[in-house]
Amino acid sequence: MSIATQHGAQSEPDASSPAGDDVATGTDLREGAFGNATGLVCRECGHEIALGPHYACPECFGPLEIAYAFPEVTREQIEAGPRNIWRYKALLPVPDDIEQSPNMEPGFTRLLKAHNLGAALGIDNLWVKDDSTNPTNSFKDRVVACALSAAVEFHSKVFACPSTGNLANAVAAAGARAGIRTVVFIPSNLEKPKQVNSAVYTDSLVAVNGNYDDVNRLASEIAGEEEGWAFVNVNVRPFYAEGSKTLGYEIAEQLGWRLPDQIVIPVASGSQLTKVHKAFQELITLGLVEDKPYRVFGAQATGCSPVSVAYKAGVDAIRPVKPDTIAKSLAIGNPADGIYVLDICRQTGGAVEDVSDEEVREGILLLARNEGIFTETAGGTTVAVLRKLVESGQLDTTLDTVVINTGMGLKTLDAVSDRVGAAATIEPSYAAFTGSGVV
Amino acid sequence: MSIATQHGAQSEPDASSPAGDDVATGTDLREGAFGNATGLVCRECGHEIALGPHYACPECFGPLEIAYAFPEVTREQIEAGPRNIWRYKALLPVPDDIEQSPNMEPGFTRLLKAHNLGAALGIDNLWVKDDSTNPTNSFKDRVVACALSAAVEFHSKVFACPSTGNLANAVAAAGARAGIRTVVFIPSNLEKPKQVNSAVYTDSLVAVNGNYDDVNRLASEIAGEEEGWAFVNVNVRPFYAEGSKTLGYEIAEQLGWRLPDQIVIPVASGSQLTKVHKAFQELITLGLVEDKPYRVFGAQATGCSPVSVAYKAGVDAIRPVKPDTIAKSLAIGNPADGIYVLDICRQTGGAVEDVSDEEVREGILLLARNEGIFTETAGGTTVAVLRKLVESGQLDTTLDTVVINTGMGLKTLDAVSDRVGAAATIEPSYAAFTGSGVV
Repeated sequence: MSIATQHGAQSEPDASSPAGDDVATGTDLREGAFGNATGLVCRECGHEIALGPHYACPECFGPLEIAYAFPEVTREQIEAGPRNIWRYKALLPVPDDIEQSPNMEPGFTRLLKAHNLGAALGIDNLWVKDDSTNPTNSFKDRVVACALSAAVEFHSKVFACPSTGNLANAVAAAGARAGIRTVVFIPSNLEKPKQVNSAVYTDSLVAVNGNYDDVNRLASEIAGEEEGWAFVNVNVRPFYAEGSKTLGYEIAEQLGWRLPDQIVIPVASGSQLTKVHKAFQELITLGLVEDKPYRVFGAQATGCSPVSVAYKAGVDAIRPVKPDTIAKSLAIGNPADGIYVLDICRQTGGAVEDVSDEEVREGILLLARNEGIFTETAGGTTVAVLRKLVESGQLDTTLDTVVINTGMGLKTLDAVSDRVGAAATIEPSYAAFTGSGVV
Repeated sequence: MSIATQHGAQSEPDASSPAGDDVATGTDLREGAFGNATGLVCRECGHEIALGPHYACPECFGPLEIAYAFPEVTREQIEAGPRNIWRYKALLPVPDDIEQSPNMEPGFTRLLKAHNLGAALGIDNLWVKDDSTNPTNSFKDRVVACALSAAVEFHSKVFACPSTGNLANAVAAAGARAGIRTVVFIPSNLEKPKQVNSAVYTDSLVAVNGNYDDVNRLASEIAGEEEGWAFVNVNVRPFYAEGSKTLGYEIAEQLGWRLPDQIVIPVASGSQLTKVHKAFQELITLGLVEDKPYRVFGAQATGCSPVSVAYKAGVDAIRPVKPDTIAKSLAIGNPADGIYVLDICRQTGGAVEDVSDEEVREGILLLARNEGIFTETAGGTTVAVLRKLVESGQLDTTLDTVVINTGMGLKTLDAVSDRVGAAATIEPSYAAFTGSGVV
């Protein structure tokens, strides 16, 4: 894998990172292109470089993430902002005029008090953060919006991703609206409906003969070879990943500027869980919420549960697996942020748990029947893990608890289509109805 | 059809309307159950009766709608409200504590400035009101939320509807969250995915051997025979229909408390168009926006265009048709509010136009490719009509224009699944990619 884009961007090339000249972007950044972000810092060795389309540390190849110098930020400033993720723009690597650039305006989705589901599970106070109502119906709109901002500021020619579903939808849609060329790579055996849901936005859907890992490798290769391509989850990943922080900000604001006591989050790469935790920590540091303990729980499907396996074994290393689960949007066998998920869940007194595909299906119906939310398999996984955590006593049912729903059921209809259907089929008469036994 | 529920509700039975005793509801309403609503008034003869689960005038069988005595309402009061339709609760037939009842919390969806679509069509300033991001992905969540409030206040036992899609989804989901029994009636030949999308929420999906008209007739019969059933679009229709006003309120607020110059709205029963107009008039009367002229345009699919046909013929009567179009959510052959749509479009200097199924498909792609919004066939119809209105000179491209998208494309994938797909299928190598001709 070529790491091609390690020259400094916002300032002179950093002396400690090798300069590259094969990427056109990063040489003519405007003032304030990344708001209060100050650089990219390695999560492993702490080495810092200038902001640019880079994702791996030039010293140790560890993952880079955004460093900031936050000004004072008040609740009032945030509350006066737009009803989407840009209300938190001061805390994101985006310019102050981000609202002026055509974008999907995602976020500020519902935080619903889940009275029925709480009662069904025996949890006193439960909320569902419902990201299925984002523009392309998953949380991916948040991260893609931040990646798009970076791509625009880097003057990228092409906005791209490897994906099997939600991410492809979000990238293709956001690129269409922004008027930037998109190229989306998918495994060629992807179900037709999922292909349509991306191809409707772009004429550059590329089907690749191989599995998701093959597609991902090809994307990294193209990112290394081609000039001016912004692969959202490859070379602009540090900017992209910051978008997940907005889930944490919103939950705290919607709870009345306080942190929940417990939160259950699905784990694919693990990025979302680590970023929600980061968001909570930032809110504490900025004095926007009271400092208090909270427990973070990770949810996986048993058919792809490398983090849960490591958690239960009490080890720090994640052993990669070959995914075999219906929860395809969580099916990352070698999760990049898995070790950080372990750290956070252990440190906060949470846990990582996994559930079978059968339990995933039950989780989907449990949420639909109790709260009127039709989630995809990832959300079914998270709700089923919530139930399992209660049953095993790992979750304290007297504490305020939030569960995140990251996507919507119309994208994974097959998961439940054999489980639900008409209660009766009748002739169109009142007599037939009263005789049907339905009521 | 039995009109069973004509006794007075909030006060003593109205002397001019026959009392009935076959409906358990309406006898023990709490104070303020319907907010500032004062009664039900016939749109044809002006006869007024007390609030109750009634939909037809006891004098002339004309449609009943809600009458109000509005207090002073300020922009500041509204802006301080929740980020959903309940910010307008003072203007709806709902109690002041409506937020406390578990409901879907729909509305306050995005109003997106459509830079690209505007440029493509030659319209200087165009916005898309995107109701596809509602909880069950259509505007029906708005009307169902108002119907649910009425059903709860009437102590209804069952929350029900006849439907072929969006309405069934919205009713089943809202009922699940509210903890009220739902029964949803659909034609038995409805596509399996649409059945799943309702059955996931309710175990009382009833398939009826017949077309939508047959299902609708059965629903009216049950509404007349059974006690305590709230059929959202039958006996609580006056309350239900008011929910569409929130589309108009939101558009005005999101434009900065001003009315658009032109608005294009899909026409099925015609209720939505008449209610958006009513909302605009209420905002003017309340002094919340400046009084100014605006043009209202109606959009139909040619395969079910009885209102457009009447408009073009210059007549007042709507001749019912047998629908034959892919825009199934607009396929009402005998639209109840068709004559009011004609009135409004003519009086405001607008028009009613229709487009072919081929143009509907083009409309879907036009919106997706330009703005990253994947709409269903109803939205494709509306966008295609917008284009046709520009091409025919009926729409003034220099005036501020809003187009409403009422639903989302995942529910009608078949409409475009033969039109879009992969640009290339390649082996997973960089050489294969560069040779593919995609870039």
